[in-house]
Amino acid sequence: MLHWLRQYRRAMLPGDMSAGIVVAMMMIPQGMAYALVAGLPPVAGIYASILPPLAYALFGSSMTQSVGPMAIVSLMTAAVIAPLAPAGSALYGVLAAQLALVAGVVLLVCGALRMGFLANFFSRPVMSGFTVGSAIVIAGGQLKPLLGASFPQFHTPSAVLGGVSLLLLLLGKRYLARLLQRCGLSAAHADLGGRLAPMLVVLAATAAMPLLGLQALGIHATGAVPSGLPELNLATSSSHWRALLQPGLLIGFIVFLMSMSAAQTLALKRNEKLVSNQELFGLGAANVASMVSGGFPVTGSISRSAVNFSAGANTPLASVITAVLLAAALVAPTGWLALLPLPTLAATIIVAVLGMLEFDTLRMAWRYDRGDAAAWAVTAAGVLALGVEAGVVIGVLLSMGTLIWRASRPHIAVLGRIAGSEHFRNIERYAAQTQSDILVLRIDANLFFGNVEAVSERIEEELRTHPSARHVVLVMTAVSSIDTTALFALSEWNASMRRRGVCMHLAEVKGPVMDRLRESDLPAQLSGPIFLSTAMACNALQECREGGVAEYI
Amino acid sequence: MLHWLRQYRRAMLPGDMSAGIVVAMMMIPQGMAYALVAGLPPVAGIYASILPPLAYALFGSSMTQSVGPMAIVSLMTAAVIAPLAPAGSALYGVLAAQLALVAGVVLLVCGALRMGFLANFFSRPVMSGFTVGSAIVIAGGQLKPLLGASFPQFHTPSAVLGGVSLLLLLLGKRYLARLLQRCGLSAAHADLGGRLAPMLVVLAATAAMPLLGLQALGIHATGAVPSGLPELNLATSSSHWRALLQPGLLIGFIVFLMSMSAAQTLALKRNEKLVSNQELFGLGAANVASMVSGGFPVTGSISRSAVNFSAGANTPLASVITAVLLAAALVAPTGWLALLPLPTLAATIIVAVLGMLEFDTLRMAWRYDRGDAAAWAVTAAGVLALGVEAGVVIGVLLSMGTLIWRASRPHIAVLGRIAGSEHFRNIERYAAQTQSDILVLRIDANLFFGNVEAVSERIEEELRTHPSARHVVLVMTAVSSIDTTALFALSEWNASMRRRGVCMHLAEVKGPVMDRLRESDLPAQLSGPIFLSTAMACNALQECREGGVAEYI
Repeated sequence: MLHWLRQYRRAMLPGDMSAGIVVAMMMIPQGMAYALVAGLPPVAGIYASILPPLAYALFGSSMTQSVGPMAIVSLMTAAVIAPLAPAGSALYGVLAAQLALVAGVVLLVCGALRMGFLANFFSRPVMSGFTVGSAIVIAGGQLKPLLGASFPQFHTPSAVLGGVSLLLLLLGKRYLARLLQRCGLSAAHADLGGRLAPMLVVLAATAAMPLLGLQALGIHATGAVPSGLPELNLATSSSHWRALLQPGLLIGFIVFLMSMSAAQTLALKRNEKLVSNQELFGLGAANVASMVSGGFPVTGSISRSAVNFSAGANTPLASVITAVLLAAALVAPTGWLALLPLPTLAATIIVAVLGMLEFDTLRMAWRYDRGDAAAWAVTAAGVLALGVEAGVVIGVLLSMGTLIWRASRPHIAVLGRIAGSEHFRNIERYAAQTQSDILVLRIDANLFFGNVEAVSERIEEELRTHPSARHVVLVMTAVSSIDTTALFALSEWNASMRRRGVCMHLAEVKGPVMDRLRESDLPAQLSGPIFLSTAMACNALQECREGGVAEYI
Repeated sequence: MLHWLRQYRRAMLPGDMSAGIVVAMMMIPQGMAYALVAGLPPVAGIYASILPPLAYALFGSSMTQSVGPMAIVSLMTAAVIAPLAPAGSALYGVLAAQLALVAGVVLLVCGALRMGFLANFFSRPVMSGFTVGSAIVIAGGQLKPLLGASFPQFHTPSAVLGGVSLLLLLLGKRYLARLLQRCGLSAAHADLGGRLAPMLVVLAATAAMPLLGLQALGIHATGAVPSGLPELNLATSSSHWRALLQPGLLIGFIVFLMSMSAAQTLALKRNEKLVSNQELFGLGAANVASMVSGGFPVTGSISRSAVNFSAGANTPLASVITAVLLAAALVAPTGWLALLPLPTLAATIIVAVLGMLEFDTLRMAWRYDRGDAAAWAVTAAGVLALGVEAGVVIGVLLSMGTLIWRASRPHIAVLGRIAGSEHFRNIERYAAQTQSDILVLRIDANLFFGNVEAVSERIEEELRTHPSARHVVLVMTAVSSIDTTALFALSEWNASMRRRGVCMHLAEVKGPVMDRLRESDLPAQLSGPIFLSTAMACNALQECREGGVAEYI
């Protein structure tokens, strides 16, 4: 906590200053836009951008993460609150703040329980499919404010302003940096300047409202923005709290996933150590802080954090500067914000989420692993068809399903002896010698509940095709762990084989696995020792046979 | 389908006959009791025991599985239907049948999609905790019918009858088989005879009702049972169907889990091949059939299947005989069934679920793996505190959580060369020589989304502690698969290292993994070939250094 402040050097200040300013300029249109996505008045986006980054600066682990409103989390907020309160009502805002509190507490509890491993519950294809599906839902939701009416109808002045804004934003995204570079700015500065295109377009559109008399044409604006922070009000019924519990869990999970994916990208760039449990605390504190300031659930944003990083941020002081600037903007006369035209804000949202439409993962998965490509497609389709909340559940189930499905087909090789040596190899790949009464099987996977049935079936199959086998040697070179389920299974296989007059043996059990097995009854149940090597096992069993001993004891 | 009928031999008939009769005698009290658990009139338990085993005989894979009502599935049925319809109403029965249909269709669809791997979603400790928690809930729910009033109150005549029934059942379970053996029966026959204790107690109690005038004392009986099968009626609102969709998924999952766990035990005893996808079809058909006969969700029961097996069942013909006998019992005068006293039925349920209170798994897990023991306890507590439906979700999350948590701590060893050899070993266990500019890491786990972050963090850590490393060799001997997420990660590690002037190399990639990698861009991104052996990698990198080549290309 604040360890970065103790190590602060003056040389870091210019970078943090410039990053703080650039991100604040980016945050004003983005925060307001994402508040709209969450179904809240635009000013709530500014509220949610002040205290959360301060809280994250205190408790978070990443140096350059920018915490605040984020498109997908806003979409989920809208999906949760919309059925509970009428749009635009005071209750809606209160529930959004409560949702941030629930998500924040969930994250803090997960942090206290050191559950950072939760970040690994989504595979990358599932994450990418989820992001693309959400981006399409968000963009689709902005068609109405962009056109001033429900598609395919449109309100001409709104649609023209929306279209012009969209065009300017796309041109700005594409050409502004190049233009600035031609004007003599360095590549890095020009790139940062290009990031300010949304702010410029929003300012221009806001100026155009009174200058061109656009409001009289029926173009909607954001409306009056109260100065200062809102009053805190969480007095709702207990049924509301209950209704927010499960969605709060899901949103907390997504907040963590999104932030971790941003932080991981940054950590790779900065060679920074990322502490996922610390990240849980940082995000938990940020969401509780968002509740205090009347905001809504927030998280680290990959696009904003990348800007923060490339604008020179060295420490969370950059975020502190951003927060101070935004607070100043709220205290300053905010009358002009009321004139911000909605079609222009909708255009900034659409352009922002266009960047989330990333199909590289799908393309690569399609070439590399069709199952992963299918997981991508099903997750994206799930978000589009059933909504973003169901999408999270589908994503987790698909990630886990892929995992269990893969685990349920472990590789098992029948081994034979390379003539004249102590080496045993897969008989399908090597000319290796087998003995009819000794079946040697190498299990090439950790034994756990997801694959014991498959291993069991394979052993039974081999016993059927080798009816004269009297000994089964399981070679455990590749087994790094055996869970309780597999321990039971080993014991049951041993009993089942013994009933048929077959002895089960283990060989080449790894040190740590052996240490654990000694805690169990298994070694006592086996008919014979656990052999150090496959060769020793086969030699011993052969000697027994030649000595006329029917069963190895 | 019916392949067993084509291979039927006359010698199998006596075994199937005796098993069919014994199971029918067991099914009558058990079916009625589990119908009560499901909140249905006892006769529904008989309905659910006729068509489902016939359907399973047509489509299922196990030869000795006995499909019908089962305690935990009945408990889940009650949990789903109770909020939707008043107890005892016609709607309640209709919804229970609909639930069987939904679960059946879910199972059939899963079978068509070959999703038999779903059986691996529960670890054994979680399954055991779930079973024990459910058994306690079921037994607790029978206290009221046992005592004739809500505990701690009781209706004396009911409580006396319940207590006597309980005592007789426990004594019968313990001593009847021994007694029969003393009377000259063989051990096997005596054991089967012992299984009929519930039927005998139920018959005695039913006879006692008119003989001792118990009904006049206020002891409740099951009431009139209609002859023949009920009429099919599924005309409910679409909102009812919607409400049954998600519970139907959960119940389908539990039906499959329970039946697979029974079938696996049997398959180990009979050395039978179990086809999990076939099992999905069999159970799906059984549940659809249960709906047709006005029953409720059914599954394979481990206790009943074990009796079926030890009574000599050779093929599903045993179940067909059971079904015919039960149908005959329904067609025969059923007046006597109306007199069956509820305290006695409650006692049979309590004694039946006592057998499910199995703490061996907990004990073994506690000794072997505290994490698995905790999963047991949390699942059992979850069922007790939040109900059986929540328990399923908790169980899946815990199983998956354990899996991801374990995966998130992969073993990675820094390797050094055994002096004068081509062998590389873990420097923590062997006196092996390292070179300051070449860091050799062996990754002892398959690379997938659950562990790439952990591997990444470990590599970064090693790079921090070995700042002079210019080459990182990842030794892939233990990596049997690389998923899409890990493929991206390898590519990102390579890029991240290169930015710092470090070259990443791969060595000893397994054949099947290499075949897959060739489909990707990774080999082209690496600075150098993928080395066949660790020694070849280190030799080549050393030669480069000695030849004055700064970077290996």
